[in-house]
Amino acid sequence: MSSNSIGFVAPQRLKVSTPLDMMSGSVLPAYQLAYETYGELNEAKDNALLICHALSGNHHVAGFYEGDKNPGWWNEYIGPGKPIDTNDFFVVCSNNLGGCHGSSGPATVDPTTGKVYGPDFPIVTCKDWVASQNVLRQHLNIDCWAAVIGGSMGGMQVLQWSIDYPEKIKHAIVIAAAPKLSAQNIAFNEVARRAIMEDPDFHNGRFIEQHTIPKRGLALARMLGHLTYLSDDMMGEKFGRTLREGKLNYNYDVEFQVESYLRYQGEKFATKQNFDANTYLLMTKALDYFDPASEHDNDLAATLSTASAKFLVISFTTDWRFAPERSREIVKALLDNDADVSYAEITSQHGHDAFLLKNKHYEQVFSAYMARVKAGLSSELSGQNHD
Amino acid sequence: MSSNSIGFVAPQRLKVSTPLDMMSGSVLPAYQLAYETYGELNEAKDNALLICHALSGNHHVAGFYEGDKNPGWWNEYIGPGKPIDTNDFFVVCSNNLGGCHGSSGPATVDPTTGKVYGPDFPIVTCKDWVASQNVLRQHLNIDCWAAVIGGSMGGMQVLQWSIDYPEKIKHAIVIAAAPKLSAQNIAFNEVARRAIMEDPDFHNGRFIEQHTIPKRGLALARMLGHLTYLSDDMMGEKFGRTLREGKLNYNYDVEFQVESYLRYQGEKFATKQNFDANTYLLMTKALDYFDPASEHDNDLAATLSTASAKFLVISFTTDWRFAPERSREIVKALLDNDADVSYAEITSQHGHDAFLLKNKHYEQVFSAYMARVKAGLSSELSGQNHD
Repeated sequence: MSSNSIGFVAPQRLKVSTPLDMMSGSVLPAYQLAYETYGELNEAKDNALLICHALSGNHHVAGFYEGDKNPGWWNEYIGPGKPIDTNDFFVVCSNNLGGCHGSSGPATVDPTTGKVYGPDFPIVTCKDWVASQNVLRQHLNIDCWAAVIGGSMGGMQVLQWSIDYPEKIKHAIVIAAAPKLSAQNIAFNEVARRAIMEDPDFHNGRFIEQHTIPKRGLALARMLGHLTYLSDDMMGEKFGRTLREGKLNYNYDVEFQVESYLRYQGEKFATKQNFDANTYLLMTKALDYFDPASEHDNDLAATLSTASAKFLVISFTTDWRFAPERSREIVKALLDNDADVSYAEITSQHGHDAFLLKNKHYEQVFSAYMARVKAGLSSELSGQNHD
Repeated sequence: MSSNSIGFVAPQRLKVSTPLDMMSGSVLPAYQLAYETYGELNEAKDNALLICHALSGNHHVAGFYEGDKNPGWWNEYIGPGKPIDTNDFFVVCSNNLGGCHGSSGPATVDPTTGKVYGPDFPIVTCKDWVASQNVLRQHLNIDCWAAVIGGSMGGMQVLQWSIDYPEKIKHAIVIAAAPKLSAQNIAFNEVARRAIMEDPDFHNGRFIEQHTIPKRGLALARMLGHLTYLSDDMMGEKFGRTLREGKLNYNYDVEFQVESYLRYQGEKFATKQNFDANTYLLMTKALDYFDPASEHDNDLAATLSTASAKFLVISFTTDWRFAPERSREIVKALLDNDADVSYAEITSQHGHDAFLLKNKHYEQVFSAYMARVKAGLSSELSGQNHD
């Protein structure tokens, strides 16, 4: 463990008994949120950051669990001296409702029936996630987030925060996201969902009761997802047409390294990571549904007109899942509102995955903006140091 | 039927008893080729064109079968007065070996065992296809093709013709193709293959003996393939985020038109079109294996140095499966050889599918080049008219 790591961490749980009115019209009478925090909340309670996770992410963003060699998914960016500096900030992340890592979701028990939710867990949206994260905010006695930060689906939650709770978010950091999915994005999600739902082990979503896992479908969905996270360039450089065994065998087994890599990613996701198939469906559905401008005649500027946060928008050159053009749509809408917005288009060959990976320019932009967030804290303004 | 259609057509069959030595090292002792011809072979026998088909195509390129409202797959481009004018040319197309529309393939009976080949049909490559098409050429008493023409996987066969039988091809028309698949291309093929092979109805390729069809896997493979044939722009324009029922239902059924469209395409392919799953595997494998430059230290110019055909290369602006850059690799290699090459990059919003669709600029370029092919026929050179 390096000196700039936050060390061992442990998840916490919040049980909520206030019903959640969901976008779909469903009501969740009670639910649980798994979350982690790093760093200390200052006396003014104004140094809290919320991290929102992406499709297959969870609340374990940074640090290590005891006995686990692998750190949280964004450990590169969160810790002492890192862009999100835990010496300065109190960092919070919760597992999204409908997830499969501790928050109420399809794999948990419905308290009203005593049975596993399975496919009966209600369809959840970005708006619902943000509403539940707001309950967590109140529980943690945080009046206003210094910043809400997220990449990909996490960036969509950041946008939703800026729209739904403008007075509760000072800075919005939206990374590798889009204001809504394109038809092509939805189509990729639909193929992934079909792969899961057509797997005979899916049992209409009741696979836990049937003691099965739709591994084949999940692995296919992950392979396809993974493919869209990588850039053509990066795959070319990393794999090219390299043969797995150095020669062609002319059979249906894996011939090329890239096939082997994708199969491994799919199998790991479906078996070792044991990701819940219903959660995968819910997350892709939430992505499809995200379209805040649809309530404002598809006018994104009008949608964001009540947002009072300052924005940092970041995109990556080779990201074809949510290309820079999609980030520019957000930037343009904010500029139309004369909002305070910074935008950086980072050169990277890593496609959509770039938002998770080390990159000097990305780190510099991120750190510089976080210094600005820090400079706005009351402790900094009054010249005090709460460290 | 319009006046510029070639009217009713019927397939023919060629039984070949000369063994085919295949690239994999396998030998096919005997085989059958289904093919169609349109127009008349002239006295000089020098007005013959070979059309090579793409992944899901077949030998029914143009005209109508009696009782079938739908014409062949390239009817827009082949017929009297069309870019490939059947008043001038004798047009030939065969179903690729390993196909499922009449040529020997996994769904046909192995004469040596009396059983359906299934997964035992040998792995077939572009080189093997071209070798079998050359047998058909000899059978039809054609000394040299006036042109070999193909789009996508068909374009790869054209390249292979120009390399393997340089003296048997005067013009090579390579449309929406690539000199080899990228890692991303292979990865998409691999996901499609996994979808088929993981379908419990696949039975390790022996589904015909089991009286099943791996419909779910085939439909998924087709959905994914189809997605990569369309451009993001075109999908955005055609479907956008249009809802199927005009409102959101917040369930796992289809919500968006694009989902409905893709599901329909997948189901049609797997049921109505009854495409053979083993053929799908073979065709995607042949695509993966295509890499003629691998035998020449990955030097495409050296690979094409013995080609003596004149070339027309065509690409489409929004094709991201085989993007214009891939066609330019071919053009550059040909220019390095001081070969006679014309290149056109056609503006189209239809992605890879554009090579099949009506497009004024495409038609003009195609027709102009075919006029040049025609001008080179002996009948034209001697001022005779065989019409």
